Amino acid sequence: MAKNFVSREEDYSKWYNDLIVKADLAEHSEVRGCMVIKPYGYAIWEKIQGALDKMFKDTGHSNAYFPLFVPKSLFEAEEKNAEGFAKECAVVTHYRLKTDENNKGKLMVDPMAKLEEELIVRPTSEAIIWKTYRNWIQSYRDLPILINQWANVVRWEMRTRLFLRTTEFLWQEGHTAHATKVEALEETEKMLNIYADFAENWMSMPVIKGFKTASERFAGAEETYCIEALMQDGKALQAGTSHFLGQNFAKAFDVKFHNKEGIQEYVWATSWGVSTRLMGALVMTHSDDNGLVLPPLLAPIQVVIIPIYKNDEQLASISIVANKIKEVLDKKGISVKYDDRDTQKPGWKFNEYEFKGVPLRMAVGPRDIENNTIEVARRDTLQKEVISIDSIAEYTEKTLGAIQQNLFEKAKTFRTNHTYQANSYEEFKLLLDKGGFIYAHWDGTTETEEKIKEETKATIRCIPSNNKKEEGKCIYSGKPSTQKVIFARAY
Amino acid sequence: MAKNFVSREEDYSKWYNDLIVKADLAEHSEVRGCMVIKPYGYAIWEKIQGALDKMFKDTGHSNAYFPLFVPKSLFEAEEKNAEGFAKECAVVTHYRLKTDENNKGKLMVDPMAKLEEELIVRPTSEAIIWKTYRNWIQSYRDLPILINQWANVVRWEMRTRLFLRTTEFLWQEGHTAHATKVEALEETEKMLNIYADFAENWMSMPVIKGFKTASERFAGAEETYCIEALMQDGKALQAGTSHFLGQNFAKAFDVKFHNKEGIQEYVWATSWGVSTRLMGALVMTHSDDNGLVLPPLLAPIQVVIIPIYKNDEQLASISIVANKIKEVLDKKGISVKYDDRDTQKPGWKFNEYEFKGVPLRMAVGPRDIENNTIEVARRDTLQKEVISIDSIAEYTEKTLGAIQQNLFEKAKTFRTNHTYQANSYEEFKLLLDKGGFIYAHWDGTTETEEKIKEETKATIRCIPSNNKKEEGKCIYSGKPSTQKVIFARAY
Repeated sequence: MAKNFVSREEDYSKWYNDLIVKADLAEHSEVRGCMVIKPYGYAIWEKIQGALDKMFKDTGHSNAYFPLFVPKSLFEAEEKNAEGFAKECAVVTHYRLKTDENNKGKLMVDPMAKLEEELIVRPTSEAIIWKTYRNWIQSYRDLPILINQWANVVRWEMRTRLFLRTTEFLWQEGHTAHATKVEALEETEKMLNIYADFAENWMSMPVIKGFKTASERFAGAEETYCIEALMQDGKALQAGTSHFLGQNFAKAFDVKFHNKEGIQEYVWATSWGVSTRLMGALVMTHSDDNGLVLPPLLAPIQVVIIPIYKNDEQLASISIVANKIKEVLDKKGISVKYDDRDTQKPGWKFNEYEFKGVPLRMAVGPRDIENNTIEVARRDTLQKEVISIDSIAEYTEKTLGAIQQNLFEKAKTFRTNHTYQANSYEEFKLLLDKGGFIYAHWDGTTETEEKIKEETKATIRCIPSNNKKEEGKCIYSGKPSTQKVIFARAY
Repeated sequence: MAKNFVSREEDYSKWYNDLIVKADLAEHSEVRGCMVIKPYGYAIWEKIQGALDKMFKDTGHSNAYFPLFVPKSLFEAEEKNAEGFAKECAVVTHYRLKTDENNKGKLMVDPMAKLEEELIVRPTSEAIIWKTYRNWIQSYRDLPILINQWANVVRWEMRTRLFLRTTEFLWQEGHTAHATKVEALEETEKMLNIYADFAENWMSMPVIKGFKTASERFAGAEETYCIEALMQDGKALQAGTSHFLGQNFAKAFDVKFHNKEGIQEYVWATSWGVSTRLMGALVMTHSDDNGLVLPPLLAPIQVVIIPIYKNDEQLASISIVANKIKEVLDKKGISVKYDDRDTQKPGWKFNEYEFKGVPLRMAVGPRDIENNTIEVARRDTLQKEVISIDSIAEYTEKTLGAIQQNLFEKAKTFRTNHTYQANSYEEFKLLLDKGGFIYAHWDGTTETEEKIKEETKATIRCIPSNNKKEEGKCIYSGKPSTQKVIFARAY
């Protein structure tokens, strides 16, 4: 399984890519920049979807579906948004192929089937959705609209990396419409909190909540809130964003409503999204040189049971016990796989499930049957212990919970150990090479931000929510600063 | 709600379209031929997805995700498939927009960003998937591959109709790979049976299982199995298809495996799909001149409770009872909405939920509180009865089951009453105008089939599975025939 698997230290980038491919999460496809998400990877994505979808619905959102294509004239209506995405748009120009007369068995684009207006494959759906909302909103009674969409989007990327940056990716995009600015801001923050809750409690990935500087904002947003995580190589990863769009899209698409006093106003908007990028974040937060490590709440297989036997008779008696354990755990809602394939040796299976990040591995041999015991190995700590089968349900529930918690604590400790304060630009540059989050004073100008980025490749990841106000001097310009912000090199 | 809602008899086509739009299922979008699926419609689709997804997984299938785009050279590899879809392909030719210098604020396609090879927006995914499978399959140990994908696809349609025929639609497409022909045929049939099971037991829609004639087959298939349903206007609707693809795609993409004897063979394939078209079938099977009628198993809201009150005091005591009923039913897994909005009158609410097809409506007024009763109205029969609140859980479960069953029986009776036998072409043409399924002898030639289609617009819907063999003469050519097949005009 894990043949020729390099360590993180040897080559972090290769480690990541090999892990994704060899653990059957995803692979590059025949289409430039697009990936195939394989069944094991997709099963994790389904768990992510399921948990988030419930959180969205529990907070009053509904799902809907809007077209894949955006006519160019709609796409360009909100200028900043259009400008932000124009350079990475896949464009449909024709709607038919025909036989290539000069090339037997081949097809060519039919020049007679050119579209009058080009269609953009959605890189994000604000334009098409706000054009639609225009017909849905007349009065304050039509508000709020709280809609989410699970969809594929396309952004033409020059340099791609599985899950982290692909031309096509899967995501959810929430698009809400509100009567007041306050309500829209509350929604923006509410969804950021949901993302943070999901990241920390489901993915076991600690995140910092904050907002972006003007130059890092979503194109067309007034404010972009984000959650930022720290990967094991010391690089930051933006894991989710929630945008306060102000009245920009309402103005671009002329979406007004009559308020309770009968006066027409423009509608306030938010949008928020997370994508299959979370898969990359998940892998890079927990996995190790032995392969994937998955938090139990997102693991497609939470427990694997492997029989250790020398003959069919032994297998038969082990299978009775194993199936009983599976039944007991199934009832608790724990997903268990009993792998009794005779085509592979136990050692091979041990490696396989370790590499695929199954949180708990149980092995049952003839002696265990005699002693009414089972050997259990934790993927996170690689520790083994022998326990009584009688306590299996309680033990498993408790241990899965402990793994979920331990992964979070471990990642949090890592982050704490890689979070620094820089008091000068020299110190800042030295710390950057260590990797991690660096708190430093910044004068608040885009100019300084750009220069630091040019010189060091570090960006301001966010201005943390509830940031401590403190007087200081910008590490770059020496000008006065009122707070420290978080810098890092990032994915 | 249902203002200006025409009856089926007046204008069936307008009835259908108005119903879809006014019941908030879907609407036309700004993109030619593409629809917006609105939250209420999407909630039904989610129920359809949920039920099917479980059926697929229970039979050993996993979900995965393959790219939206198919490079032209892959698309054309399986010639029949390519030929079948070439005329309805959206084609991406460029990957960037730029500022239009002659047109302030506008964008134009950047001619410098022309793709070397055009990308087809998938109309179906056999090509990209079989190109991928090639790398996954070496030995019989790698088989079978049982994968499903939930995705959007695009087929450029000239005449569109909400849900029934749209340029973009949502669907699932299963793509399986097998070591033997027998196994692939078994899979094809198994999935057809799952579709039939779903149609009849979830959608309450009776279907006929059968297979298509050569000219109606999926492009690239050796055999296309289908389920055919009959709509209330007497037109047939193909509700799902399952294709035996033989070794066509394996040969086109050179996918071979070593069998147990070590000999290389081409892999056998199936593919199968249902789409948002099922939403149209659902609406047209059950709905009436009062609006939507939904089978309880697919209804987003199964029970609505409406308070009838004159003052706040009455509402308060009704709300206590209503919330208790909701709690009792929630526990049974029944989805209940208690609509205590004071912005709408009870009469308006009655119409609204009737129009939206909520299976059971419960009304509670002050006298009900005194008597410990509740008035219940069934959407399918429009019958009302007053029942004791003490029996509410049992009554509701039983009645929802009865509605599910009654809708099926009603649709089946309709089909029986609109199924005919034609013994001559004259009779055939007269029956066609009545609408319905017509069993008639056919000589088995594509020529005859085409002529009948030209002259009457009727197509052979299917050759039923387990069809009765009987000697006869083709109604058109008079040539010998060994069985009757089913004709109809169709969606």
